[in-house]
Amino acid sequence: MSAAEPGRSPTLVHHLGDFELEGGATLPDAHLAYRTWGKLSNAADNVVVACHALTGSADVEAWWPGLLGPGRCLDPERDLVVCCNLLGSCYGSTGPASPRPGGGRWGADFPAVTVRDAVCAQRRLLDALGVRAVRLVLGGSLGGMQALEWALDDPRVEAAAVIAAPARHSAWAIALSEAQRAAIAADPRWDGGSYDPSEPPAAGLAAARMMAMCSYRSPRGLGERFGHRLGPGGEPEVVGWLHHHGGALVARFDAASYVVLTRMMDDHDVGRGRGGVEAALRSVRAPVLAVAIDSDGLYPPAEQLEIAELVPLGELAWLRSPHGHDAFLIETADLDRQLRSFRARVASLKRRLAG
Amino acid sequence: MSAAEPGRSPTLVHHLGDFELEGGATLPDAHLAYRTWGKLSNAADNVVVACHALTGSADVEAWWPGLLGPGRCLDPERDLVVCCNLLGSCYGSTGPASPRPGGGRWGADFPAVTVRDAVCAQRRLLDALGVRAVRLVLGGSLGGMQALEWALDDPRVEAAAVIAAPARHSAWAIALSEAQRAAIAADPRWDGGSYDPSEPPAAGLAAARMMAMCSYRSPRGLGERFGHRLGPGGEPEVVGWLHHHGGALVARFDAASYVVLTRMMDDHDVGRGRGGVEAALRSVRAPVLAVAIDSDGLYPPAEQLEIAELVPLGELAWLRSPHGHDAFLIETADLDRQLRSFRARVASLKRRLAG
Repeated sequence: MSAAEPGRSPTLVHHLGDFELEGGATLPDAHLAYRTWGKLSNAADNVVVACHALTGSADVEAWWPGLLGPGRCLDPERDLVVCCNLLGSCYGSTGPASPRPGGGRWGADFPAVTVRDAVCAQRRLLDALGVRAVRLVLGGSLGGMQALEWALDDPRVEAAAVIAAPARHSAWAIALSEAQRAAIAADPRWDGGSYDPSEPPAAGLAAARMMAMCSYRSPRGLGERFGHRLGPGGEPEVVGWLHHHGGALVARFDAASYVVLTRMMDDHDVGRGRGGVEAALRSVRAPVLAVAIDSDGLYPPAEQLEIAELVPLGELAWLRSPHGHDAFLIETADLDRQLRSFRARVASLKRRLAG
Repeated sequence: MSAAEPGRSPTLVHHLGDFELEGGATLPDAHLAYRTWGKLSNAADNVVVACHALTGSADVEAWWPGLLGPGRCLDPERDLVVCCNLLGSCYGSTGPASPRPGGGRWGADFPAVTVRDAVCAQRRLLDALGVRAVRLVLGGSLGGMQALEWALDDPRVEAAAVIAAPARHSAWAIALSEAQRAAIAADPRWDGGSYDPSEPPAAGLAAARMMAMCSYRSPRGLGERFGHRLGPGGEPEVVGWLHHHGGALVARFDAASYVVLTRMMDDHDVGRGRGGVEAALRSVRAPVLAVAIDSDGLYPPAEQLEIAELVPLGELAWLRSPHGHDAFLIETADLDRQLRSFRARVASLKRRLAG
């Protein structure tokens, strides 16, 4: 969308004050970076919360451009779209790279932050903005985990779209996170997380990202894109593509944030303290659209099916794609269509219940 | 099988002499470690060649015990079972850890070895043993890649079983190998492959193995095995399991061999120099059983289906398992049954053609 769109904010900062975490620690003087698109209605009931994935930021325009704009699912002419950078990330919110009280940066001492903590912080922002109703909360991957916690935690949520995300991080996905953290730790510059920001564990973080990219894509998707073409150096083109992604992440992301946020995903479990996953999902009151990607090897369709089946007003939608997990960032035309259709059904249900 | 089985050999060594590789380099004074079970028949026509996977050895007893023994698919009372350690490996055959001419070990200078080189070396051993017919060549994963090259290269092969292996390493699988090599290289002890064997890049190799383990298993398999149980340290049990596997490989395998053999897999392409994969597969004369594992995310069933469809006497068999790629090492009762049935069909076909 262009700069002329209504209510397109720069990155703003919301001060949370001392923020108590689920694990018991307190983040003093914590803050959230966020952006908004659109205007809050007089009834303060037109908010849409977009939640970003592992290495995303509050800049929805940058990572979900196909979903944001007039006539799209996230329509600033109708909605106030809000997106916060996650606590623990490195795009403006408090994280391991932030200064800690007493001097220096948090680094390895940054406490564990859960998806619930992240959602709680975002809810505080909405409280401060005077928001009375959230028409939709949505996200893919770690963003979808947040959307599900939003639906469980906040009665203002009228609908949630949980895209390519599970109700609980699987043992297999935890193993994949751990292997990535092991690659970071294999780089001595990691130094237990206490590294000098000017000498980050670049090789370890790049290897971790390369592993992650494999889990975000699929054999069919990479096969169709690269086949067995060789690059200029005689190596398969896919090898150059993979190193490009490793290096690009190193240039834009903090290794300690990567560790904090992969642990956030590993701790994700909507059933914790709620009598288990099934009881938690059955307690969700809002309609939930669980979007499954048929080629997703990271969070396979069975995990979205579980959500759709157990949430009383749950439904399943399919994103058919050869690209694997990353399809939620790639197949945005289809995703936008399905999300608009879901919003129309939710609005119709709301009218019927009111009428 | 017990030590009383007929013809159970210790690890033997076959000297190849100067061995020319597909890439043009020569390995001087190369040798193969191998083991045998059973006796060569008077007609020298009862050989079965078993091929090991990435980190395996000639000790079939150790990694495929369920397939070897009286009444099993590999039956030393009927067959002479032969298994060679791969060129490039570290279990007795010439590899990067071997002394190089002029002193020192090969290390980073060890030349690229292809699956065809590996098979060619094994064929030389069979020549030396006077073998006239190979009743079956079989293997899983990298072992299956060898079995397919055997079927293409050697007219003595009467049947091949290619288990959970592709005709060509996919772009996605190459990416996964590259990410693992990046994790090894992130460990400064790797030193471009010139490390001191007493100080190997343990952290990098462990991280690579941890990543590989994720690709060998499946979300469902690890979910059924570990669920979300916590270990004694409060971490998920799957994390302890993963580190155990990382550490176990470091204790038994050479990092430079790991790099050489992952590159061997990445170079695997039965179509190279044969007019492409389709032409190569159509030229296979022996019956080939392609065994697909329904939960295999590394070499998905479509890759075995391609082999079964294009090889004129190809057929597809399914190994149904929650465990993913590693099912070829886990579901050995079912695999043994299917392989015995295949051998019976091949024997029947041979009798019909002779009659």
